[in-house]
Amino acid sequence: METMFEVIGRMLSNNKFSAIKEMLCEMNDVDIASMMAEMEPEDQVRIFRLLPKTSSADIFSYLDSDIQGNIVDAITNSELKFLMEDMFLDDAVDFLEEVPANVVTRVLAHTNSETRNLINKFLQYPENSAGSIMTIEMVSFPQNYTVKQAIEQIRKNALDKETIYTCYCTDGKRKLVGTIPLRRLIVSKEDALVKDIMYDDDQLIFVNTMDDQEEVAQIAKKYDLLSIPVVDKEDRLVGIITIDDIVDVIEEENTEDFEKMALLLPSEDNYMKTGVFSLFKNRIVWLLILMVSATFTGQIIENFEDKLAMIVGLTASIPMLMDTGGNCGNQVSTLVIRGLALGDIRPKDYLIVLWKEIRVALLCGLTLATVNYGRMWIIKLVTHNTVETNTFFVVCLAMMCAVIVAKAIGCTLPIVAKLIHIDPALMAGPMITTIVDAVTLLIYFSFATLFINMNLISG
Amino acid sequence: METMFEVIGRMLSNNKFSAIKEMLCEMNDVDIASMMAEMEPEDQVRIFRLLPKTSSADIFSYLDSDIQGNIVDAITNSELKFLMEDMFLDDAVDFLEEVPANVVTRVLAHTNSETRNLINKFLQYPENSAGSIMTIEMVSFPQNYTVKQAIEQIRKNALDKETIYTCYCTDGKRKLVGTIPLRRLIVSKEDALVKDIMYDDDQLIFVNTMDDQEEVAQIAKKYDLLSIPVVDKEDRLVGIITIDDIVDVIEEENTEDFEKMALLLPSEDNYMKTGVFSLFKNRIVWLLILMVSATFTGQIIENFEDKLAMIVGLTASIPMLMDTGGNCGNQVSTLVIRGLALGDIRPKDYLIVLWKEIRVALLCGLTLATVNYGRMWIIKLVTHNTVETNTFFVVCLAMMCAVIVAKAIGCTLPIVAKLIHIDPALMAGPMITTIVDAVTLLIYFSFATLFINMNLISG
Repeated sequence: METMFEVIGRMLSNNKFSAIKEMLCEMNDVDIASMMAEMEPEDQVRIFRLLPKTSSADIFSYLDSDIQGNIVDAITNSELKFLMEDMFLDDAVDFLEEVPANVVTRVLAHTNSETRNLINKFLQYPENSAGSIMTIEMVSFPQNYTVKQAIEQIRKNALDKETIYTCYCTDGKRKLVGTIPLRRLIVSKEDALVKDIMYDDDQLIFVNTMDDQEEVAQIAKKYDLLSIPVVDKEDRLVGIITIDDIVDVIEEENTEDFEKMALLLPSEDNYMKTGVFSLFKNRIVWLLILMVSATFTGQIIENFEDKLAMIVGLTASIPMLMDTGGNCGNQVSTLVIRGLALGDIRPKDYLIVLWKEIRVALLCGLTLATVNYGRMWIIKLVTHNTVETNTFFVVCLAMMCAVIVAKAIGCTLPIVAKLIHIDPALMAGPMITTIVDAVTLLIYFSFATLFINMNLISG
Repeated sequence: METMFEVIGRMLSNNKFSAIKEMLCEMNDVDIASMMAEMEPEDQVRIFRLLPKTSSADIFSYLDSDIQGNIVDAITNSELKFLMEDMFLDDAVDFLEEVPANVVTRVLAHTNSETRNLINKFLQYPENSAGSIMTIEMVSFPQNYTVKQAIEQIRKNALDKETIYTCYCTDGKRKLVGTIPLRRLIVSKEDALVKDIMYDDDQLIFVNTMDDQEEVAQIAKKYDLLSIPVVDKEDRLVGIITIDDIVDVIEEENTEDFEKMALLLPSEDNYMKTGVFSLFKNRIVWLLILMVSATFTGQIIENFEDKLAMIVGLTASIPMLMDTGGNCGNQVSTLVIRGLALGDIRPKDYLIVLWKEIRVALLCGLTLATVNYGRMWIIKLVTHNTVETNTFFVVCLAMMCAVIVAKAIGCTLPIVAKLIHIDPALMAGPMITTIVDAVTLLIYFSFATLFINMNLISG
């Protein structure tokens, strides 16, 4: 079956504009935006001009910034003015943050002065702050309104507001004093006073403009909120953050954690849109740091090289020991990093975590060492190699110790990072592996030296 | 300052029950639940009995299943009956899925037969299906209602419904035919017909009871929905999924990805609640598989052991080459896995991704090899070691190739996994590292052999 995109493409080339207009009226905004993303730049502009006036600003907000820039370049000043007036302020700010400076200048020149001042104020909030993601299109009224007055106000403004489902109550000084869900208003008596039925005091949840967006998301998740009010330093209500933006923040923060855990510098764009050089730049820093750190591991081997050369079977186990140590450390650090991010683990739980990990490490270490002993025996039987069976003990003992040390390091570093205000996500697999590698080899060679000194293996 | 928990604890031991009751009325449900989690079992029950009747079921839903079980054990049959009648069905099902069988039997015995049948039906939906997370407490009405009738119905039922902000319209056969936001009803004329103003056809978004919860979350995110209707095989409306549950699904799926990427079997409970043996069980399977896979790497080294022993400086570079290869692979696979999960990368983009990665790998490889060459020179100067400078070339050439191969494998495996319906998240760091290690060593030793055969290094 043909896709909508193909059908509309053919209609466009046949100039069937009014039919397209009818179709667009029936389609979902998000689907229209996805479809436009697949089109040629000139078709994007043509479709944009055919959009129903009531939803063109919404659809524009869903487009990627390069398409937005392309459309703004092509439309007239009066079309631009209409678009800016119709867009929600937070969407307008998002859009202006992404497009080139000359586009911003032209857009601001065709915005009324009130909106322009608001936009400029928004652009000044630090990136990732509550202020930078909030919207000002909320319903608020004085706490001494009656239910009837409140519902009247909502009915009048419903279409211009981003959500009407939670309303905000203020005192004479515009200070936030309570919230009230529309559902509660609807079931209350018409002459009841808002201040008598609103949620206030301990039940009032809000954030500050300068709070980090991650904190905002945590609060929204914890309290199952559809929107959170934002106040300024004087506790005055200045905006709200809605759940759809919070869902975006949650995914953004998760992506950042995934990236940090692979020791990538976080990138703003999605993978397909990121250039080769940016990808390179985001990766090379940590690759270089880790490579140079491996010098230490190299030196450990170098110091032991003579003995490695003399004892058959020691070198062959190096990769297995290193990998197993790294994998063990990686498993723990991932659980602890995620636990810290979700608030399931708190730094004060450290000793409980460590004690748990040591017991898990004993179980894992014993199992791995036992299986490994069998594995080495089987290889010896199959390949008839000349590895002494006492060497098996060296490898298995080193394995046990490496697992315990790896688990201990894997749970310690993320918690320490949290305590000294470094992002725990950096203490994931790659970082742990580099540290655990060096420690594992030190343990391995110490055991080997011990066995040689006790004449248990020849070297 | 004392915490609320400490104050209430002291009030409890002084039997100041009515004062506690007053306090609880003023507190947020979620905060009460968090506070109860810190208390001794008997205090949890005492607090539960003091809760305002209107919110006790809500607060119960926020408690962890062990506390829920503890409370149910302690309360009377009539208290239990009241609790079950007041709880939203999806919360009741969540609770019953977690508690021991004897508790389930007692609870179901004190539930009316209608609810019991519904609960039994819900318990049969497969885990992680849309059916298992939906709720039936939604507002729906026939499409031929007037706006006035619809609002009347909402007003009557508002308190028993999980959300009233999106309403669902059905035809004579209970088939879902449209949705209408409360906001649209409020601004419409009273005598307008619902079917004329509802969203239908292409604008109607819904899921099936058997759809995976991850798909549901994707759709909710894409369309910024506050709730999604769920239909059965005959397209009849059977429930809705609300945004707060979708946020939980998003976090759950992210946690699962984090766990899979560290090759942990996914666990249901949070870290602090998981026992040592479960943690061991979740980790050991993959640790064993990876350890045994490392046999292959060990064999590669063993076959080359004589030459390693003869050429100074070769062994010492093994960890650095392995780590760098692993890190490079890990970076790419993380980006690709995340891109696939968010829908930014599609399997059909494979060639674009691969070509991008090869160019990034060339840049990374060149930089790493150059810095490494310098690093080896400095070590030679400082430690006066006897490594031949031609050996530097072997290491740096192997490094270049390893980086390219690692990046290629790192982007290929997750996409292949996706195509053959294995979870791409499994193709992360640890898995890639094990494969890349073997390949890196093969490349390394091939170059060394080549140089020896050409008499460029002595061996």
